[in-house]
Amino acid sequence: MTTINLNADMGESFGHYKVGNDEGILKVINSASIACGFHAGDPTVMANAVRLAKDNGVSIGAHPGFNDLWGFGRRQIQMKPKDLEHMIAYQIGALNGIAAGVGAKVTHVKPHGALNNMAHVDSEYAEAIARGIKSVDREIIFVANALSEMVTAGRKLGLRVAEEAYIDRTYDDTGAMTSRKFPDAMIHDVEQAIKQVLSFIDERAIISKTGKKFPTRIHTFCCHGDEATGVGVVGAVRAALEKNGIKLMTLPEMDL
Amino acid sequence: MTTINLNADMGESFGHYKVGNDEGILKVINSASIACGFHAGDPTVMANAVRLAKDNGVSIGAHPGFNDLWGFGRRQIQMKPKDLEHMIAYQIGALNGIAAGVGAKVTHVKPHGALNNMAHVDSEYAEAIARGIKSVDREIIFVANALSEMVTAGRKLGLRVAEEAYIDRTYDDTGAMTSRKFPDAMIHDVEQAIKQVLSFIDERAIISKTGKKFPTRIHTFCCHGDEATGVGVVGAVRAALEKNGIKLMTLPEMDL
Amino acid sequence: MTTINLNADMGESFGHYKVGNDEGILKVINSASIACGFHAGDPTVMANAVRLAKDNGVSIGAHPGFNDLWGFGRRQIQMKPKDLEHMIAYQIGALNGIAAGVGAKVTHVKPHGALNNMAHVDSEYAEAIARGIKSVDREIIFVANALSEMVTAGRKLGLRVAEEAYIDRTYDDTGAMTSRKFPDAMIHDVEQAIKQVLSFIDERAIISKTGKKFPTRIHTFCCHGDEATGVGVVGAVRAALEKNGIKLMTLPEMDL
Amino acid sequence: MTTINLNADMGESFGHYKVGNDEGILKVINSASIACGFHAGDPTVMANAVRLAKDNGVSIGAHPGFNDLWGFGRRQIQMKPKDLEHMIAYQIGALNGIAAGVGAKVTHVKPHGALNNMAHVDSEYAEAIARGIKSVDREIIFVANALSEMVTAGRKLGLRVAEEAYIDRTYDDTGAMTSRKFPDAMIHDVEQAIKQVLSFIDERAIISKTGKKFPTRIHTFCCHGDEATGVGVVGAVRAALEKNGIKLMTLPEMDL
Repeated sequence: MTTINLNADMGESFGHYKVGNDEGILKVINSASIACGFHAGDPTVMANAVRLAKDNGVSIGAHPGFNDLWGFGRRQIQMKPKDLEHMIAYQIGALNGIAAGVGAKVTHVKPHGALNNMAHVDSEYAEAIARGIKSVDREIIFVANALSEMVTAGRKLGLRVAEEAYIDRTYDDTGAMTSRKFPDAMIHDVEQAIKQVLSFIDERAIISKTGKKFPTRIHTFCCHGDEATGVGVVGAVRAALEKNGIKLMTLPEMDL
Repeated sequence: MTTINLNADMGESFGHYKVGNDEGILKVINSASIACGFHAGDPTVMANAVRLAKDNGVSIGAHPGFNDLWGFGRRQIQMKPKDLEHMIAYQIGALNGIAAGVGAKVTHVKPHGALNNMAHVDSEYAEAIARGIKSVDREIIFVANALSEMVTAGRKLGLRVAEEAYIDRTYDDTGAMTSRKFPDAMIHDVEQAIKQVLSFIDERAIISKTGKKFPTRIHTFCCHGDEATGVGVVGAVRAALEKNGIKLMTLPEMDL
Repeated sequence: MTTINLNADMGESFGHYKVGNDEGILKVINSASIACGFHAGDPTVMANAVRLAKDNGVSIGAHPGFNDLWGFGRRQIQMKPKDLEHMIAYQIGALNGIAAGVGAKVTHVKPHGALNNMAHVDSEYAEAIARGIKSVDREIIFVANALSEMVTAGRKLGLRVAEEAYIDRTYDDTGAMTSRKFPDAMIHDVEQAIKQVLSFIDERAIISKTGKKFPTRIHTFCCHGDEATGVGVVGAVRAALEKNGIKLMTLPEMDL
Repeated sequence: MTTINLNADMGESFGHYKVGNDEGILKVINSASIACGFHAGDPTVMANAVRLAKDNGVSIGAHPGFNDLWGFGRRQIQMKPKDLEHMIAYQIGALNGIAAGVGAKVTHVKPHGALNNMAHVDSEYAEAIARGIKSVDREIIFVANALSEMVTAGRKLGLRVAEEAYIDRTYDDTGAMTSRKFPDAMIHDVEQAIKQVLSFIDERAIISKTGKKFPTRIHTFCCHGDEATGVGVVGAVRAALEKNGIKLMTLPEMDL
């Protein structure tokens, strides 16, 4: 039986500042990646996010980002790999500290924003992240963009790796997401999103806009709940998956 | 047999900025309280401090402080107890994340600076800290100023509490440390430091400058290694303790 | 002819995080207090706020707060007066740096949140703020809660002081705003807001809920635009002022 | 008559953390670049640095850096040019706010660390910095690495530009400083430093280790006072300049 996971980012508010739609998206996903206070999130926001996730049967992961609240973790920063490794361990640990209070535990890690983009192509960054994860707990799953340096780095270190694609992003002929500079980077249409998800699963491949195939098994699809139509689209994709007999589950339940 | 612990703060450097004498003090203490990135410390500084402590057979604890690097955690901040509780859990977790990489674990917590001063007398703060500790791991020892609200709060929640006095601070007739505003707040003389430590242990009491006794069992003495003479004084105190047949041990080894 | 000023806080967004309704409130006020990056605001948010204010003929002031983005400047912090004085000068200067680019200049200063509350009653804080203002530019107007220590401190140093009351807050029998702990702290009703503003001006006094009068000339009323009904209420108050022949003007235009 | 300026960085302490030798270096330089709170420096450190500079007849400039205290401004950060421009204006303004209190004013700007390195070769960054400077005060001098994109950007915008070389760094055959990765990047020998400075002035060129010449008029030499021998080397260079009839002056006194 085919299994799949739906994940989304959460807990990106900070103090007085509120963003996202955590309550809504939690009803349709299986795993949540929670910001850890460096690019977004604060200890109380994190605690609330973990509690909400637990109440909805959703597994939690750390969503570590650069130490740049002003840039929301979307600015590339050149760090020493050793600092990056420790920064990852710090953020995972911080979320585990918060999660312990509600009887939960970090079971996956997904890098955020510019860090994710850099580690997609930079093996030094990818390996520093993998070492950071492994140093905290070698059972933690590394959620990595399909076909990225992170997949290679995670497997090299013996980590469980979940290859990820997006339900609302198109792919170009290098196998990477179409840059947001281009008008067709985003998928807004429900039917197109469903079609992409089902074809990636059926074909066991990333498929570009022009039809080029990059064979790989996708384990988890990233969803966004912060746009007006976001939760609706994710719910429709989920319904289509279930209708097609694909079993949805949390990341730690998956066979990785 | 009488047992005692010597503790000191560590890992208070930050990025380019170096302070303290971690290598020196580690040779004469049993337990180290490591800054967790809010008032001092960064992920790499923390990792180095944990490794050094482990190499010296010194147990590690978290030394959480206010989110105020500019003030080095020495400015009082009025927080909601819920935010404080989560901030404590966050910092303990962060250090546990870092410590895992060297096979170590947080076994005690000691609040830093202004947070420690406020929680000494404020039961709401003391209880928020105790809840934060308990939420992460109920085996963690709460290192609390002798006779403070923190001792009460920790015991109320069923935590192991280590009552703490200072080897280099005098005490006034309320049982609290003499304020630093007064010239006799600090003990610089080795013999006076040794005398104070031995009398507190023998008499099972805090003894003020005027001789007033506040009965309580002291489990751990706080030492400072960052002054020129610091490590020498601590070493002399340690030698005097051993000469008097008092057994030195790490905090988790103690019967609390 | 009676003159009055309406002021509001602005520029409280930060990076990815958006709050407030700057465009709306600017149409009905005369002077804007702009956050300076410590409790809210970033350089680009500040630049946009200054430009908007200028386009609407609104004078600008600095709205300095504590260095506590997590707490949005609403947590009391105990600082050394010297640090506070320099922190105020820093924030005023930073806004002047940004404002120069659009040909504007800081003409008033109003402390934010917990800093404002502390300086209301603490003469050391009030004087440190006044010194900070004077050190940058002795022509800058100190916007101070009516009857507060800030009024005294500002006048003592020879600054121009604008005494401030709120259009949407009730006052208690000490002459201070009713604490937000009480249900009647806020005024939500337009007619009540208009009545309070007109009576404070007519009677040249703060008038408490029970009718107690605290004689003083109010120069400026603080308004809030960030609630759904906010701008509407302020607009109605403004219309009532104009109907009663009271002339609205920017702070630097006022005779202080 | 030949004129030259000696400059150095200052005010890089932060709160509890002390670095540098500001008192020593001030005795031998003409202009100081003061950190502005983003990568180093705090409002009180800045105030002390400005006062010290003024007492020594040294002109002051802003030394803006990335918002990365952990990385001490030495990590490259990819920002939007608009954010960078505003960040520069913010930091210059902040220092002007502090400087006003001691009757001083920012008369030059020199970017710090990774920002300086990036703007050396990146015209977008160089122009954003130049726009930030010009927006605050078009009289401010842009201190720019000789032959860099910053020189071009500053002149394009009509700013006064001071071309800078280092007394303690060698140059490679591209006309840039030898990377610190190589053992011969630094000049530790006094005679070598003096020889380099005099030859750059005489030949009106940057001269590489192999003797390659890059013609340009150097206006200012950057010195470092934070190493044990630092101040001594700078003093010897200064004495040699004076002995050779070269007149030392502050940046605003120079004919740029």
